[in-house]
Amino acid sequence: MHGTVPTPSVSIPTLAISMGDPAGIGAEVIVKALADPMLRERCRAVVFGAGSCMNAAASAAGIKPFWESAISERASKAPFVLIDAESAADSPATFGYAPTSAQGGELSFKWVQAAISGLRNGWADAAVTGPISKAAWALAGGGREKYPGHTELFAESFQSERYAMFFHAPPTYAGPGMNVILATVHVPLMQVTRHLSTRRVIDTVELADETMKTLGIADPHIGVCGLNPHAGEHGLLGIEDHDVILPAIRACVANGLHVTGPHPADTIFQRALSRIGARPRLDVVVAMYHDQGLIALKTIAWDRAVNMTVGLPIIRTSPDHGTAYDIAGKNLADPGSMKAAISLAIQIAVAKRGE
Amino acid sequence: MHGTVPTPSVSIPTLAISMGDPAGIGAEVIVKALADPMLRERCRAVVFGAGSCMNAAASAAGIKPFWESAISERASKAPFVLIDAESAADSPATFGYAPTSAQGGELSFKWVQAAISGLRNGWADAAVTGPISKAAWALAGGGREKYPGHTELFAESFQSERYAMFFHAPPTYAGPGMNVILATVHVPLMQVTRHLSTRRVIDTVELADETMKTLGIADPHIGVCGLNPHAGEHGLLGIEDHDVILPAIRACVANGLHVTGPHPADTIFQRALSRIGARPRLDVVVAMYHDQGLIALKTIAWDRAVNMTVGLPIIRTSPDHGTAYDIAGKNLADPGSMKAAISLAIQIAVAKRGE
Repeated sequence: MHGTVPTPSVSIPTLAISMGDPAGIGAEVIVKALADPMLRERCRAVVFGAGSCMNAAASAAGIKPFWESAISERASKAPFVLIDAESAADSPATFGYAPTSAQGGELSFKWVQAAISGLRNGWADAAVTGPISKAAWALAGGGREKYPGHTELFAESFQSERYAMFFHAPPTYAGPGMNVILATVHVPLMQVTRHLSTRRVIDTVELADETMKTLGIADPHIGVCGLNPHAGEHGLLGIEDHDVILPAIRACVANGLHVTGPHPADTIFQRALSRIGARPRLDVVVAMYHDQGLIALKTIAWDRAVNMTVGLPIIRTSPDHGTAYDIAGKNLADPGSMKAAISLAIQIAVAKRGE
Repeated sequence: MHGTVPTPSVSIPTLAISMGDPAGIGAEVIVKALADPMLRERCRAVVFGAGSCMNAAASAAGIKPFWESAISERASKAPFVLIDAESAADSPATFGYAPTSAQGGELSFKWVQAAISGLRNGWADAAVTGPISKAAWALAGGGREKYPGHTELFAESFQSERYAMFFHAPPTYAGPGMNVILATVHVPLMQVTRHLSTRRVIDTVELADETMKTLGIADPHIGVCGLNPHAGEHGLLGIEDHDVILPAIRACVANGLHVTGPHPADTIFQRALSRIGARPRLDVVVAMYHDQGLIALKTIAWDRAVNMTVGLPIIRTSPDHGTAYDIAGKNLADPGSMKAAISLAIQIAVAKRGE
């Protein structure tokens, strides 16, 4: 009898995908991304969003809808499911909302919470979040206004204070890739040092190391940026490089990490440019502030960077662009970043199962 | 008789080139750059430096010396002249000095001053400066220590307070180019706003406009960076974007300049990537601080960026790298940036003659 028992098919990860603001390009990039059969065969996708938006995007792009609509995740076992409580309840179509509306904020917030529930309940292996408007969340109010973005909402939901924003741009034949992690994020430039401590730099270096190991690099080479021009030039151009960042690097080296710095920020990133088939000298760069890391990343990989929240017990990725209200509904959106976000979520979910 | 008078050959510009620190890679990149016949036919070059360094670099690179040695610019009419007062006086060879020495600082300072004299006396159309060590200038003392670098020395020599550092990376078939100008330069990051004023931003935008016109763009499109993440996000992430930078942009627009911003710094630079045969959407980006502009430029064009002091009545360019003491004397230096610096000096000298 042994030989006749069917071998279970290798299970593929289930992604909970939130559509983002209904007036933005979220639905369009999700539909276009999942229209790629190479991506579809690697995951099951449960999208929380509005059928009206998905249908309009598919129609404009000439894509035949490939998903089943349902009112809850449990109601369907289809490989691609759209959870659209609005349509099911016969409520007005959400498509056509104005940019930055309270309604858009309510819906996009609800859809992210549904994805978070999927992670909590265990049926989702990873979440991928479409672009929301922080201003719409603020308009919607009711507590939504206190989150500067997805990252802080996920961090609170999974009760973590040791987390960071990690950005991955895969190399393509068209251009190089890069990995960057941020020690501070959404703070005014002149207040960066209020948020930067030796402890925070150590945490960020360790998160960089853990993330690169999850991505398959056994011994990641980590480069840390200085804060000041020329990394402070021996104190002539600032003291934080020596007083705050260097002690963190020394502590991490003592703990066995392969980390160097603080390096002058203008010259470090070219050593982190990854090309297909070749490992760069630096697998990941630790940037001290938002623009320091993202200027390099977005200049070389504008259309294919992925944002990932690291340090949490769950997997969450996101395309690295906003709602792009100005081009929404025009079939102009490039799904490259959403495809990269879905692909990275799958890769990490598979890697974590193997641990 | 008319037809027999020989037509004078089109006169080519004369460059005064300072070798930089004798323990650095200055001599090597000058020898390798001028070994290119395409560059040699476009200029006359008078190099202030040490024959011992030039000969060693040529020998290591297998280049036959193409220059004549002389003790003053007036002593030779050869197209390529090395002014080497040391050898002429039979003094000890300067080659072999240790990195960051007082002697190296004295010599490199003297050679820059000789190039400045060439500009003052009018025989030089432009200066190209090899990399010096600020620490060596400080060790040499005698007033040299007060200059953070070439830029400030040139500004003082030509009595200008309205000047800026401009960076040009030419596009190649291997990768895109970019033009960047800095509103502030060598200041600690947390002190940037002390040096940033609406007046300073206006000056920098105007210098960007003038420089691009000299480079042949009749109606330059200028993009201005915000200071804070997301250009302040309507004041949520900082006030300088609205209070300091925006008024400068409005004033420049009122004066007829084609300038926009403040733009989020992480996404502006990809719109300034220039490719061969195609004009980018932004001809030049005005960055608020050192790393903001140079992270983008050096990440995409590590090996071919040129630094130019703009706003002065003279032309001065420089390769965008340092002394690189660690690889000096090993025939490992890439002359790409020095070639670009010489080429840009020639281009601007020719353009200014035509004005």
